[in-house]
Amino acid sequence: MILECIKEPNDIKAVSPERYEELAQEIREFLINKISVTGGHLGSNLGAVELTMALHLVADLPEDKIIWDVGHQSYTHKLLTGRRDGFETLRKYGGMSGFPKRKESQCDSFDTGHSSTSISAGLGIVKARDINKEDYAVYAVIGDGALTGGMAYEALNNAARLDTNYVIILNDNNMSIAENVGGMSKYLRKIRTVEAYKDFKIGLENTLNRIPGGDQLVDTLKRYKSGVKQLVVPGMFFEDMGITYLGPVDGHNIKAMVKMLNEARKLPKCVLVHVITKKGKGYMPAERHPARFHGAEPFDIETGLPSRKGRKANYTDIFSTVMIKLGTRNEKVVAITAAMPDGTGLKRFSNIFPERFFDVGIAEEHAVTFAAGLAAGGLRPIVAIYSSFLQRAYDQVLHDVCIQNLPVVFAIDRAGLVGADGETHQGIFDISYLSSIPNMTIMAPKNKWELSDMLKFAVNFESPIAIRYPRGEAYDGLEEFRKPIEFKKSEVIYEENDIALFALGSMVKTAEEVREDLKERGYPCSLVNARFAKPIDTDVLCKLCSTHSLIVTLEENVESGGYGEKIRDYVFTHKLDSDVLIIALPDDYIEHGNVELLKKEVGIDKETIVKRIITQYISWGNKHRKDK
Amino acid sequence: MILECIKEPNDIKAVSPERYEELAQEIREFLINKISVTGGHLGSNLGAVELTMALHLVADLPEDKIIWDVGHQSYTHKLLTGRRDGFETLRKYGGMSGFPKRKESQCDSFDTGHSSTSISAGLGIVKARDINKEDYAVYAVIGDGALTGGMAYEALNNAARLDTNYVIILNDNNMSIAENVGGMSKYLRKIRTVEAYKDFKIGLENTLNRIPGGDQLVDTLKRYKSGVKQLVVPGMFFEDMGITYLGPVDGHNIKAMVKMLNEARKLPKCVLVHVITKKGKGYMPAERHPARFHGAEPFDIETGLPSRKGRKANYTDIFSTVMIKLGTRNEKVVAITAAMPDGTGLKRFSNIFPERFFDVGIAEEHAVTFAAGLAAGGLRPIVAIYSSFLQRAYDQVLHDVCIQNLPVVFAIDRAGLVGADGETHQGIFDISYLSSIPNMTIMAPKNKWELSDMLKFAVNFESPIAIRYPRGEAYDGLEEFRKPIEFKKSEVIYEENDIALFALGSMVKTAEEVREDLKERGYPCSLVNARFAKPIDTDVLCKLCSTHSLIVTLEENVESGGYGEKIRDYVFTHKLDSDVLIIALPDDYIEHGNVELLKKEVGIDKETIVKRIITQYISWGNKHRKDK
Repeated sequence: MILECIKEPNDIKAVSPERYEELAQEIREFLINKISVTGGHLGSNLGAVELTMALHLVADLPEDKIIWDVGHQSYTHKLLTGRRDGFETLRKYGGMSGFPKRKESQCDSFDTGHSSTSISAGLGIVKARDINKEDYAVYAVIGDGALTGGMAYEALNNAARLDTNYVIILNDNNMSIAENVGGMSKYLRKIRTVEAYKDFKIGLENTLNRIPGGDQLVDTLKRYKSGVKQLVVPGMFFEDMGITYLGPVDGHNIKAMVKMLNEARKLPKCVLVHVITKKGKGYMPAERHPARFHGAEPFDIETGLPSRKGRKANYTDIFSTVMIKLGTRNEKVVAITAAMPDGTGLKRFSNIFPERFFDVGIAEEHAVTFAAGLAAGGLRPIVAIYSSFLQRAYDQVLHDVCIQNLPVVFAIDRAGLVGADGETHQGIFDISYLSSIPNMTIMAPKNKWELSDMLKFAVNFESPIAIRYPRGEAYDGLEEFRKPIEFKKSEVIYEENDIALFALGSMVKTAEEVREDLKERGYPCSLVNARFAKPIDTDVLCKLCSTHSLIVTLEENVESGGYGEKIRDYVFTHKLDSDVLIIALPDDYIEHGNVELLKKEVGIDKETIVKRIITQYISWGNKHRKDK
Repeated sequence: MILECIKEPNDIKAVSPERYEELAQEIREFLINKISVTGGHLGSNLGAVELTMALHLVADLPEDKIIWDVGHQSYTHKLLTGRRDGFETLRKYGGMSGFPKRKESQCDSFDTGHSSTSISAGLGIVKARDINKEDYAVYAVIGDGALTGGMAYEALNNAARLDTNYVIILNDNNMSIAENVGGMSKYLRKIRTVEAYKDFKIGLENTLNRIPGGDQLVDTLKRYKSGVKQLVVPGMFFEDMGITYLGPVDGHNIKAMVKMLNEARKLPKCVLVHVITKKGKGYMPAERHPARFHGAEPFDIETGLPSRKGRKANYTDIFSTVMIKLGTRNEKVVAITAAMPDGTGLKRFSNIFPERFFDVGIAEEHAVTFAAGLAAGGLRPIVAIYSSFLQRAYDQVLHDVCIQNLPVVFAIDRAGLVGADGETHQGIFDISYLSSIPNMTIMAPKNKWELSDMLKFAVNFESPIAIRYPRGEAYDGLEEFRKPIEFKKSEVIYEENDIALFALGSMVKTAEEVREDLKERGYPCSLVNARFAKPIDTDVLCKLCSTHSLIVTLEENVESGGYGEKIRDYVFTHKLDSDVLIIALPDDYIEHGNVELLKKEVGIDKETIVKRIITQYISWGNKHRKDK
């Protein structure tokens, strides 16, 4: 095994070139074996094996800086920088992250997770290098999917002005997570396939001269320089901005990439190296089903099928089904995703209502303002988006949707702890950042039927409205409680005395378990399904405060700016004379790991909650009992 | 006066073509006269007079939809749609907005204010039109400055796929608010100036054929179609994405524009019409000083100089001066602006330290992640930005700066009520959206000296930190109080008994006035300068709660998620047994108008505050006096 000889950064440089392919093969097998057990991002990593090897052959780590856009394709990079053992604990609590982390290795120069940040970050590092009079190389590696994100373009627009070296590697596999979309994608496809470049010799000299010799026509054209460029050099789009374009180069040909990267490093400006790769390369199931193997569950290597069978429906499935109903009943209903037709569950809607479905690419800002335009035009847009990605469109929600009070529905998936993807992807801020926006309404369903009811309510609501629901299995308990959704109304599920649990969304299930536990211990509690995080149901709150000495709020969001604070504030301001205990997440980022473990760690698991309630009740509530 | 005959939308169509110039002249005079008195956006409006006239000649309002990017260039549009009288109250409280507002006129089809939203919104309206089987025209008018914003590119990338008509008008004056920057700007300049197009005949036929006749060379080239396009058609950048490019056309030649717009409307796809205009056109001072006449104070028409003389220094001036000192003392200090070198006060820094100054264009997302890169590279970046524009980079603050705990300083100008620009520009959400981000620290200075002290503190701070300060005159009272800045420490200015005012930033001045008033009325109050909005100074809070029955917090931010809620929460949770009254802004957008009037309206003026404190104190505090 060559891989066993690679223990430290730069060890790869001792591998002889004729064994590169062998090493690539070993890496692929290693990744497939490990990820089939742990789960993780497979397709993007298989596609980037040779590219990463070429980079490590050229770069001197950790002096040189590599910034991996999104970062889920950095597994080979981790493997080549002494983190082989880390794959045993990949994405597990306390184990190795699935993304680059500065605290994990000196060879990780910038943390990533969300898309399209690498060119900006790399440009900052380039400028810092120059100001500090240092001379290391900076490489940003960005996929063609991430290139549809606006901030990548903002950064290119700035990088174009550089008079110092900066290498951007466009890892072009013609995919976002799903199929890539839009004008830029079409353009890149053209470059890849155009007849004229089929025999185009890779090499810097030709590219720099911009005029290949031997063609009589070209001579005639010399004075029309920009015209000639278009003829012989692909990537005019980038050249037009002022960025030197090199490529395209086969992203599975290590020697060709090494040569081009070495040349790129010599130019005193921003250079874009266009590398063509295949997502899932070398593992047939992943090549065939790129979306499924983007972020994969543990799977059987032979068949490529998930190891875990017969899973229960998750909230995304419910959303998916309800969207078909809504689309059928109301022809004004349209759906928007930012490059996540599968992840958000909109794929089926898109098949049935292609004209009313919009995949805008990795472009959350545009997605939201585009939805505002659709609403202004009289439709009922539903933006299906992950909680952490909606952060990208905070201003668009505030400025384009809510100022005009437009009826846009935000279906916020992955709200709460997401688990293995870790801190960049935890959906734990949405209640906070949406609550302070005027005209916004925020709901969260207790179980799968309520998600359905809330969606139906939302598409008939005349203002901006968000429904947040978590990753994973949809709760199917409490089926018998299905009071119609009414604006600002919570649902009282059990009414007892003196302790009342106000639980939001995913925490209703936990609260129900807490309630049963407490009942056994002799503390019967009332249970309220909050339904609305904004506005809060002050009627029920007032009523219950008159008969309960302790109000407990439960939510899967940071405490700061969350649901509990609103409740506590109201109780205090109106001197309702009940104590309030907030169960929420701390003011901190939460790393990767199994969701149940994470919940214990941050104290929102049943046991911790029960303990906290009893402690609080004994210290205060009990002395102020209202049921006596 | 022709202008007097224009009372309703579409009235301009009755004007005979030979009088267009005369009308344009009247409009210019009208705008200069009015804006010299009221203040407002002048340069952009003078540049867009003919363009707007051409659009109104072509469009049928309000059926057709025009979306004005940013929207400050919509004055002529307002004038031509029956809002002439509105200019008497332009940007005044209760009067006409300086931006398009759907509630103001049916001819305003989408509210704007922040940059780069128009193409997204317009595309949404186009899709809604098609789904609703309607047939109106949709025009998005976007400046070349706004085109540097990433979401404009995200939208272009999507619009490229259209098979239905959508007209984007690129109003190219080679300017953002200040000089435009970056690769795209360079590219547009090339189109404007390149020799080959000087005599290029405007007209659809040539452009569509893409090959002008008469040139022998072109024949030879016919088979190299993309090369030929580059030779004869500017705008290849857009064509590469799949957008039909028409132009460039003289933006002060109405007939040429009308012709081109009519042709553009006929194509079943997305068409970009490139219009070249001059900012400030027709008024020499505005042509010469585009930045000063971007958003102008009232001015003398003869000289172009501001009517109001001898103004006191504002916080931006203080920031500007301190930045020079910081830059001199510490060579790691670098400064970033998103197209606002003048507005943020960084112009002087840029003159003295050009290598350490970065104007990234209208690109707030990139600005923040770029700063994160600079910090990761070992520098001390200061991002100078308006509060409402930082909303654009919420995810970049959370995901790129704060997860990695990078020492980026955010100098947040225009935090609080900004006045005439109105709801899109009020800086009243930053405490809320920043407070829930882990690792973030938020400060606000009481007066001009404290801004200086805080900046010095911030550049030596090892984590992300924000300083928020308002628009307008810097407070120069309370000079004698200048305790050194310490993390999490507030400053107790006056200590009395039973009522304590905890004021943040700009509200310290108000609180001091409130304190004096209350003292005269027999209610002596303690006064605390909060300094930190996050984390709050719990030591002083605990101490004062033991001797005060009423705590009053004062801030220029929405209550939801703001400073006061943090204080109230702490008091309640720790059962400090003091009442808390929060003076903050309501959960609502706040329109344009004089800041003092707005403060009265929303209840954060001295009189209202005094009344509310007395009422609260009598109803509760007085009965729980702690000073007896």
